[in-house]
Amino acid sequence: MNVTQFLEKNRARAESQLLEFLRIPSISTDPANAQDVSRCASWLADHLRSIGMPLVEVIPTDGHPIVYAECLNAGPNVPTVLFYGHYDVQPVDPIDLWTNPPFDPVVKEGKVFARGATDDKGQVFLHVKAIEALLAVEGRLPINMKLLIEGEEEIGSPNLGPFVRERTEMLACDAVLVSDTPMFAPGMPSIVYGLRGLAYLQIEVQGPNRDLHSGSYGGTVNNPLNALACIIAKLKDMDGRILIPGFYDSVLDVSPEEHDSLADLGYDDNRLLLDVGVVTLVGEEGYTTAERLWARPTLDVNGFLGGFTGEGAKTVLPARAMAKVSMRLVPYQTHEEIAKKAMDYILRIAPPGVKVSVQDLHGADPVLVPRDTSAIFAAVKALEETFGTKCRFTREGGSIPVVLLFDTVLKAPTVLMGFGLNNENAHSPDEHFDLNNFHIGMRAVARYYQLMAETSTR
Amino acid sequence: MNVTQFLEKNRARAESQLLEFLRIPSISTDPANAQDVSRCASWLADHLRSIGMPLVEVIPTDGHPIVYAECLNAGPNVPTVLFYGHYDVQPVDPIDLWTNPPFDPVVKEGKVFARGATDDKGQVFLHVKAIEALLAVEGRLPINMKLLIEGEEEIGSPNLGPFVRERTEMLACDAVLVSDTPMFAPGMPSIVYGLRGLAYLQIEVQGPNRDLHSGSYGGTVNNPLNALACIIAKLKDMDGRILIPGFYDSVLDVSPEEHDSLADLGYDDNRLLLDVGVVTLVGEEGYTTAERLWARPTLDVNGFLGGFTGEGAKTVLPARAMAKVSMRLVPYQTHEEIAKKAMDYILRIAPPGVKVSVQDLHGADPVLVPRDTSAIFAAVKALEETFGTKCRFTREGGSIPVVLLFDTVLKAPTVLMGFGLNNENAHSPDEHFDLNNFHIGMRAVARYYQLMAETSTR
Repeated sequence: MNVTQFLEKNRARAESQLLEFLRIPSISTDPANAQDVSRCASWLADHLRSIGMPLVEVIPTDGHPIVYAECLNAGPNVPTVLFYGHYDVQPVDPIDLWTNPPFDPVVKEGKVFARGATDDKGQVFLHVKAIEALLAVEGRLPINMKLLIEGEEEIGSPNLGPFVRERTEMLACDAVLVSDTPMFAPGMPSIVYGLRGLAYLQIEVQGPNRDLHSGSYGGTVNNPLNALACIIAKLKDMDGRILIPGFYDSVLDVSPEEHDSLADLGYDDNRLLLDVGVVTLVGEEGYTTAERLWARPTLDVNGFLGGFTGEGAKTVLPARAMAKVSMRLVPYQTHEEIAKKAMDYILRIAPPGVKVSVQDLHGADPVLVPRDTSAIFAAVKALEETFGTKCRFTREGGSIPVVLLFDTVLKAPTVLMGFGLNNENAHSPDEHFDLNNFHIGMRAVARYYQLMAETSTR
Repeated sequence: MNVTQFLEKNRARAESQLLEFLRIPSISTDPANAQDVSRCASWLADHLRSIGMPLVEVIPTDGHPIVYAECLNAGPNVPTVLFYGHYDVQPVDPIDLWTNPPFDPVVKEGKVFARGATDDKGQVFLHVKAIEALLAVEGRLPINMKLLIEGEEEIGSPNLGPFVRERTEMLACDAVLVSDTPMFAPGMPSIVYGLRGLAYLQIEVQGPNRDLHSGSYGGTVNNPLNALACIIAKLKDMDGRILIPGFYDSVLDVSPEEHDSLADLGYDDNRLLLDVGVVTLVGEEGYTTAERLWARPTLDVNGFLGGFTGEGAKTVLPARAMAKVSMRLVPYQTHEEIAKKAMDYILRIAPPGVKVSVQDLHGADPVLVPRDTSAIFAAVKALEETFGTKCRFTREGGSIPVVLLFDTVLKAPTVLMGFGLNNENAHSPDEHFDLNNFHIGMRAVARYYQLMAETSTR
């Protein structure tokens, strides 16, 4: 019996075990679920032991535990791959919008519905099952394998950075494999090679020393809300071009090759319009929608507050105004560079009669994974063989900070090979995962490990 | 004994009665105080009876009662004056910022501290005491007198309009007298002859059908907060000039005479800077601060809300944004005309990819009282004789909607002859009223009635 046959034979068992995994409400953000998170880590560790992983540990942190496992008996001449995933899940609110209870998984039309189904328990579990098949059929893994599965991804991984920095030797590897990104579309296996970074600022504008009557003072005392609106209007022009001096200095242009490769994806603007319910898209002239989303930086106001915001009319000239503004960055912008340029510019364009201050709340650098590594070649081959179709290269508009962590601390390239779909409601009610991708994903992953064994170590 | 001597002799008694009036917590907005408001109306009516007013009524409305009194035995050849004031007061929050309890009046350094001291109980009561003196000394009033003292001014006078429209005959008069405005400065008696109007709009911007992840969609889906900031930035330029087409079409220019008259006031910009705690004033080029405040229209954002406004960083591209925007108007702008022009313009400049809607929340037309009427001449003479100094003509930046009501329904000009001061904390903690102005106000008002008797009826 080969690996594919083993997987085929064990379909029902794998699905029923997945439902068991999904039943544990491992919501990391809610202290009320701390025991459940802990229980989920134990369940996963037990399962890893049961499939024959020689070393499995549940490692406590200041928050939720990390599950670590390894199987390093493939020998020194084959590469070591570190798989990263997370067993914690998002909260379930608004709970009344779920068709079925989020922790009582049901299978309908080939999809499993539950919180965590696609993000990320379902994807984590297909790796576990692929490893199980390899161990069962071949008695060993073709490569050296480490698994790092954390319980705090949905709350920003506060304890992962210190953990990785303290255990660089334990985690040393030739490539990192992550399955936490979507495929470009159903039936189109994809590798994500770029992630945007983030510079997140908060702007505060102080006007008069107290809320004033707008009748008694309007026309002489500058209004922080008007002032802040003017500042924000000067950050980006109507064509989506960011006006902060030097903002584009470090931006890597989309090469003609990448332009063609992204164009080949056939990004469907109409589907996006329907999805978000607007009549027209906006953005920088001269770039396609996929490029605007993935390969070009942008700027969004994430929050704006000031003055009277209740029902009706109150004639206040407020003392203060606040806005949260974030910029998505692309290689080779850095969040420190961009935050500084933005802060300098905002303070420079501050209108008279108000005090403007800017705070740097959060930042992440963009990532571009080289596409010409043996880890990527193996991934492409595994996906194409398994799906029987061309593997797509895509980028993502958001950030996955752990990718940078692995890059900088472990000096290992990350392969982002996800099996979820964009419309599977990650973070929303009725989250689900296509069981077809669950099973095909196992085969692809098992094949990936076999192909990686054929590459030389670095 | 003449009127002045009577008032002098009864100083202590008048003050002690004022404290009694101030002790009643007639907060009109709080249902918990409804009984107190009612008790205050009865107290005032009883007092008016006790000073010899021949007709005194407490008239119920759908809200708080109106106190009405008249004394019409001066004969057909002298004018009839309608005094308007209000016995209700603002709430007391933030209560912990008061040095003394707001309804336990204390006299310190010649000022009485209590909620309602300057706005408007103290000013109402000086009229009552002036009438008392005239009745006591002369046995009759020199003019026909009507008093209309409402209990809902601080909640927008919802029942006054219907009342005045229903009782035009009862309220018919040659002039309306109101003491609810400040003097220009201590020792400077003033008549307010202009009030700005108001057009108050709410702008709503709808973007995508739900809050989106700013990483996954930013750069292609227009952001309602950015869009609204851009709209607002296009309403007024950096010099305070409003950019709505046709906005200034009906604006009455400040005449050279009025410019000189306002300049003569010696408006103190430094005092305003210190008062509001900013380093510089703003506004339209070519106009003085007094002109910008009183004689020029302006535009202020009164509230702005959208997206994530809590602590920290959330990367949301919000579905909606909202702003409240009001414009202060000057003669001969009308609030309907300006609201329409503003709405048309806002819809025209709406950026692509969002739906913009504008709602007209509230409006009031500006007022300019003719300065060459016998009612004003008499007021000037009374103030100058009593204060021994020149009477100032000033305008106000806010609106007093009842002035328009009297103008349009009763066809009577309003004399705005107030005795409060700008820094007496109306609507704020530690509200107070200068007792010197309380007493001098009585003499001025009594003298005004005497001088009005010498004018002919219209």
